[in-house]
Amino acid sequence: MRDDATGPGHHMASELAEQPRIWRGLVQRHAEFHAIGRAIAARSPRFVLLAARGTSDHAALYAKYLVEILHGLPAGLVSPSTMTAYGAAPDLRDVMLIAVSQSGGSPDLVQTVEIARRGGALTLAVTNSPASALAAAAELNVDVMAGAEKSVVATKSYTAQLLALYLVLEHWRGGDASEAHAIADLGDTVLNQAQLAILASAPRYRFAQRMLVTGRGYAYPTAREAALKLMETSYVSAQAFSGADLLHGPLALLDPLVPVLAIIPQGVAGAAMAQVVPRVSQARADLFIVGTREAVAQADAGFALPGGDAEVMSPLLEILPFQILALHVAVERGEDPDTPRGLRKITKTT
Amino acid sequence: MRDDATGPGHHMASELAEQPRIWRGLVQRHAEFHAIGRAIAARSPRFVLLAARGTSDHAALYAKYLVEILHGLPAGLVSPSTMTAYGAAPDLRDVMLIAVSQSGGSPDLVQTVEIARRGGALTLAVTNSPASALAAAAELNVDVMAGAEKSVVATKSYTAQLLALYLVLEHWRGGDASEAHAIADLGDTVLNQAQLAILASAPRYRFAQRMLVTGRGYAYPTAREAALKLMETSYVSAQAFSGADLLHGPLALLDPLVPVLAIIPQGVAGAAMAQVVPRVSQARADLFIVGTREAVAQADAGFALPGGDAEVMSPLLEILPFQILALHVAVERGEDPDTPRGLRKITKTT
Repeated sequence: MRDDATGPGHHMASELAEQPRIWRGLVQRHAEFHAIGRAIAARSPRFVLLAARGTSDHAALYAKYLVEILHGLPAGLVSPSTMTAYGAAPDLRDVMLIAVSQSGGSPDLVQTVEIARRGGALTLAVTNSPASALAAAAELNVDVMAGAEKSVVATKSYTAQLLALYLVLEHWRGGDASEAHAIADLGDTVLNQAQLAILASAPRYRFAQRMLVTGRGYAYPTAREAALKLMETSYVSAQAFSGADLLHGPLALLDPLVPVLAIIPQGVAGAAMAQVVPRVSQARADLFIVGTREAVAQADAGFALPGGDAEVMSPLLEILPFQILALHVAVERGEDPDTPRGLRKITKTT
Repeated sequence: MRDDATGPGHHMASELAEQPRIWRGLVQRHAEFHAIGRAIAARSPRFVLLAARGTSDHAALYAKYLVEILHGLPAGLVSPSTMTAYGAAPDLRDVMLIAVSQSGGSPDLVQTVEIARRGGALTLAVTNSPASALAAAAELNVDVMAGAEKSVVATKSYTAQLLALYLVLEHWRGGDASEAHAIADLGDTVLNQAQLAILASAPRYRFAQRMLVTGRGYAYPTAREAALKLMETSYVSAQAFSGADLLHGPLALLDPLVPVLAIIPQGVAGAAMAQVVPRVSQARADLFIVGTREAVAQADAGFALPGGDAEVMSPLLEILPFQILALHVAVERGEDPDTPRGLRKITKTT
C-alpha cells in the first residue's frame, strides 16, 4: 500500500491487509463451529433476533439474510432500547438471540442478552473479546479471533464477524461450509488487485461532500458498511439504501455532484439492481461500481471482482475495495483514518 | 400557512393540515379496530414481521416498537428480497406479517404477503387503498382512510398509518386505546403553533447541504421519517441515526456546518438522549430540537411540544414540525415539494 508504516491510516492499512489470513484461521476451526452448530440445532430455534451497534450491526444484517434464506426462518434486528430503556421483558421461547460486538463492552448489549436469556432465548455472543462482559452473559460464545484492532475504524473484525456468523449458521443447518474454503485465497487476489486500482480512483472523490451507496440482498449490508467507513474516515455524508428503497424517495437526492457507489456482483444481488442503474444514470450521477467486469465497464470508476466466489460469501470480498477507498479518500483529505474525530474504540451506550 | 393556494407545495401544505381530522376519524372506528384486534388475538401470534418501503417503513418501525414494548413479543422488519429475489419460502407458523403501504401497489410487497400467507403467517395489510393488490393478498385489512394524497411526498398517509397500527396492536392486547382520545386535539394545537414558529426557523437551513437527525425509542422512527422528508423535498443529505448508533461512528460527521435535528420529548425517549446532546455540543454542531420546553431552550432553534400526550402517541405529534420544516426549506430553495425530481407517487419495486 503506502510506504509509510507510521503515517496516517497505517493501522487501518495493515489491519485490512490481515483479513485473508484471519479468514483462513476461522475456516480451520471446523470442529469448533460444528459443535456450536449442533448445540443450536439441538434447541431448534424458530425465530432469530440479532443485536448489535455500528459496524457489527452490518454483520448482524448479513446474518439476518442468512437466516431468512438458508434457514427459511423469520429474523429481526433488535431495537435494544425496548428492553434497556422501556423495560420490555419479552417472551423469547424458541428464539435465538445473537449479539455481535467487536469489544463485547457496550452495556446495552450486555443487558439485552441478559434480558433475552431470562426470557427463554438461546443466546450467542460473537465478539473479538472472549473475556468481555458480553461473552460472559451469553450461553454460547464465538471468538472471531481477529486480533487486536488498533484503528478506531473496524475492518478486520467486521469480515471476521461475517465469516464467523456464516460458519455458525451453516453448521447449524448441517452444512459443510465448503463455500468458505476458497474465500481466503480470493481475498488475497482482491486485495492485491484493489490496492493499486483504488489508490488511482481515490482522488476522484477528494471533494465529494455527499455520496449514496446502494446494493441489494447479500450486498445490502456491504452498502451500509461502506457508507459507515466513508463517514468515519472521510466525514463525507455517505448514505446507504437498498436498491429498492432508493427508488422510494432518496432518488431525489441524486445529481451530478453526488457520486453513487453501487455493488453489482454476479448472482441474485446483482440482477436485482437492474432496475436501479438506469434511474441513477438518468440523474447524470457519477457511478462507482464494485462487481462484475460488465457492470464496472458501464461505470465512471470502480473495481471488477475476480469471480469464482459463492454469492453467500461475496460480502467478505465486496467490502475490501470500499475499505481501501475509505482509507485513501481520508488520507487524500489530510485526515488520519485511524483516529477519527469524536470517536472512541469502545462505545458504551446505555 | 402560505397565502398561495396553488404555489409550490400547496398539496403538501393542505394535506399535512388535514392530519388531526383524519386521526379523529380513525379513533371513531372503535368497533372495527376492536374486531381486527380480536381476530388477531384468536390466532395468538408469537412473532411479528413487518414489510414496507420508504415512508411506510418508518410506520412499520413504530409498530415494531409497539410489538416489543406493549406485547413483549419479538419482531422484525422483513428484507423483502430474501423472499422475492432469493426465493426463500420461510416457515411462518405463529407469525403475523403486517405489510404497510400507502398505495398497496408495489409488486415486491404483494409477493411477500403471498409467500408469507403460504408459509402459515397471519397476514394484515395496512394501506390507504382498500382496492389495491396488497389489500387483496392479505387475510386481514385496514384502510387508513387518509383520502387521496396528491403530493408525491407522503404526510397524512404516514400519521394515519401510525395511528391505525397503534389501534390494531392496542386492541389485539385487549386495550381500550384511551391514549388516542386526545391526540387529534393535540394535533390541532401543535399545527397551530408550529406553522408560524417553523416558518421563522426555515431560513436558517436554506444553505445546509447535510443534516443529521436523531432520536431514540418511540422517537427513532420520527428521526428516520424527518430525514426522508428533508431528502425528498429539499435534496439535503439528511441522515437519521438512533442516539445510540450516532455514538458508534457517525458522530465523526459532526461539525458546525452540519445541523443536528433531535427529538427530545418527555418520557423514556427523551431521557435516553441525555448521553447524546453533550457529545453533539462538544462538536459545536448547530442544534434544532423538537421536544420539551427545557430541551428546546438549550437549542439554537426548535419547537416545544405542548405536552399532555402519552409517549406511545407522541410520534404522531413529533413529526408535524418536521413535515412543516421540510415544506418551508424546500420552498425557500425554490423547489416544489409536491413533485420532487426523480420520484413517482407509486413506486413499483420488484
